[in-house]
Amino acid sequence: METIRIALIGYGNVGKAFADMLLRKEGFLREAFDVKAEITAICTRRLGGCMDAEGINTAALTEDKFDKSLDALTIIDAGEYDVMIELTPINIMTGMPATEHIRRALRLGKHVITANKGPIAWHYRELKNLAEEQGVSFCYEATVMDGVPVYNLTKQNLMGCRITEVEGILNATTNFILTEMEKGVSFEDAVEEGRRQGFVEADASMDIDGWDASAKLTALMNVLMDVEITPVDIRRTGIGGVTPEDIEEAKAHGKRIKLICRGFLEDGKPVGIVEPTLVEEGSLATTMMGTASYVTIVTDLMGGVTVIEEPFEPEIDHTAYGVLSDLLRVLTDNVAH
Amino acid sequence: METIRIALIGYGNVGKAFADMLLRKEGFLREAFDVKAEITAICTRRLGGCMDAEGINTAALTEDKFDKSLDALTIIDAGEYDVMIELTPINIMTGMPATEHIRRALRLGKHVITANKGPIAWHYRELKNLAEEQGVSFCYEATVMDGVPVYNLTKQNLMGCRITEVEGILNATTNFILTEMEKGVSFEDAVEEGRRQGFVEADASMDIDGWDASAKLTALMNVLMDVEITPVDIRRTGIGGVTPEDIEEAKAHGKRIKLICRGFLEDGKPVGIVEPTLVEEGSLATTMMGTASYVTIVTDLMGGVTVIEEPFEPEIDHTAYGVLSDLLRVLTDNVAH
Repeated sequence: METIRIALIGYGNVGKAFADMLLRKEGFLREAFDVKAEITAICTRRLGGCMDAEGINTAALTEDKFDKSLDALTIIDAGEYDVMIELTPINIMTGMPATEHIRRALRLGKHVITANKGPIAWHYRELKNLAEEQGVSFCYEATVMDGVPVYNLTKQNLMGCRITEVEGILNATTNFILTEMEKGVSFEDAVEEGRRQGFVEADASMDIDGWDASAKLTALMNVLMDVEITPVDIRRTGIGGVTPEDIEEAKAHGKRIKLICRGFLEDGKPVGIVEPTLVEEGSLATTMMGTASYVTIVTDLMGGVTVIEEPFEPEIDHTAYGVLSDLLRVLTDNVAH
Repeated sequence: METIRIALIGYGNVGKAFADMLLRKEGFLREAFDVKAEITAICTRRLGGCMDAEGINTAALTEDKFDKSLDALTIIDAGEYDVMIELTPINIMTGMPATEHIRRALRLGKHVITANKGPIAWHYRELKNLAEEQGVSFCYEATVMDGVPVYNLTKQNLMGCRITEVEGILNATTNFILTEMEKGVSFEDAVEEGRRQGFVEADASMDIDGWDASAKLTALMNVLMDVEITPVDIRRTGIGGVTPEDIEEAKAHGKRIKLICRGFLEDGKPVGIVEPTLVEEGSLATTMMGTASYVTIVTDLMGGVTVIEEPFEPEIDHTAYGVLSDLLRVLTDNVAH
């Protein structure tokens, strides 16, 4: 049985949920790939790092196992691992420091998985080329719609199709706020409730101003439509200007306001738009409530193919599964079985 | 460059659309797989068969190229090909003769692709085991929701997930009829319009009575939930009993009647139900109009993941793409690239 060693750079909720899932699916990994997965390095912001080439027992990990002096770059350079999983807090506006972590690991010939949309929105082409040069896998399924297959779906199952357009609701926070406002809840109270439920950041402005949705749309367009844009190229309008009156007015006509993302080509040039949009009664977008999201991929051979992510359930971590599904992809592509 | 030789058993609309698509995507096959695909045998019901180990020029195929004495079994046994594609007219109630064609080709060590749901509904386990014994690929993506990835999505992109439930609208004809009836069109006129548009068979009873939906639900459950049932195990009610009054009554309450398929486990035993169902305003199912369809796959790690097929567009053949996507899967799994 082969052992695959994992370095977790970032160990917040997603990292911990991933480590738990890995333990739960130990039997599956053995049966499907004849592989044992060991987490051999963990890096946290607050406690520093922890390394053990024999494998860290994450179920019994205590604070005293961490060494303050071990930072991400030291672990990436010195750690013994095959796959680096990048889960550090995101800076949507720069893609840093995640991009630097990924670059460094790829240059060392490691497979890389990230749940961080920044690197895909800002530096996709460079990182993709670097991974190809090094002959390693570079996976990022969790960056858009968590563990719902979007990139892998297109690459593996819509093979041969040309993607001409993408459309969707890509940001859970704003969709949740708009849903709550329809119920008469105030903007501020909706944000607060989202924080209480754990999916809204302390600083919600990146969501509200449409930057998160723009970064995801950019990532989708760069990967699926083979263009080279960054989030500043998106025509972006957030939901800050949507008033309770706008929402009431829409409701009165059987419509809803949703933050819709659309990417397409116009005269061969990529156009990306994120804006609050009046969606028609009976349309798919009107059925997306709370933290639900969807993306429609328009193809030449199959027309539009849509995938939907259901609202988050507290007991299920969709992002952690996205990371696990990437790990299984790395195993499929690199381990003989 | 490697050549992959294809035998097309059945050459109706889907077969012809597939042959056209193959010509259009010649460049893609060369670039992605360094492969040239040649159709070396074709079998039709009316004209007999045509074989040419050097490749048949399907763009210039005339009736005089066919030999009346060449039937499907002769071509399967004597033809020079690597992949057999089964597209004969379906008998939902027996899975024949498609199953016999598939068995025979698998025994000869050929890869097999089918768009025929019968064999998957009636003989999945046997055929799957036979393919595994022979070390060949057996693909059937087009049997449910045409070219929309359902089987491949689950196998490749929801790897590691346990499937606990499937739900969806799986039959386009009945959904089209129900949609037309909402507009005030009579049942009979709706069927006639579906025939005119080409997606309703001369004998529509297999659709109307729910047998087609039951065969698809059976196929999904056999493959995704690893059970062993046949279409007669499904609790089946067709749409023949749905009256214009029922539809009006639903509409008056903001609801719709849809032929919903559900498969789940009850005390460890598989339960499959196909029946006209009152779906709530604002639900995904209410937005499925005309020939649209969807399936929701409920998993342990990701909750429900849904894929949607848009209504047919006359210029796009979704089923032919399903067959092409299976061919690309066969190439991915068997050709070094």
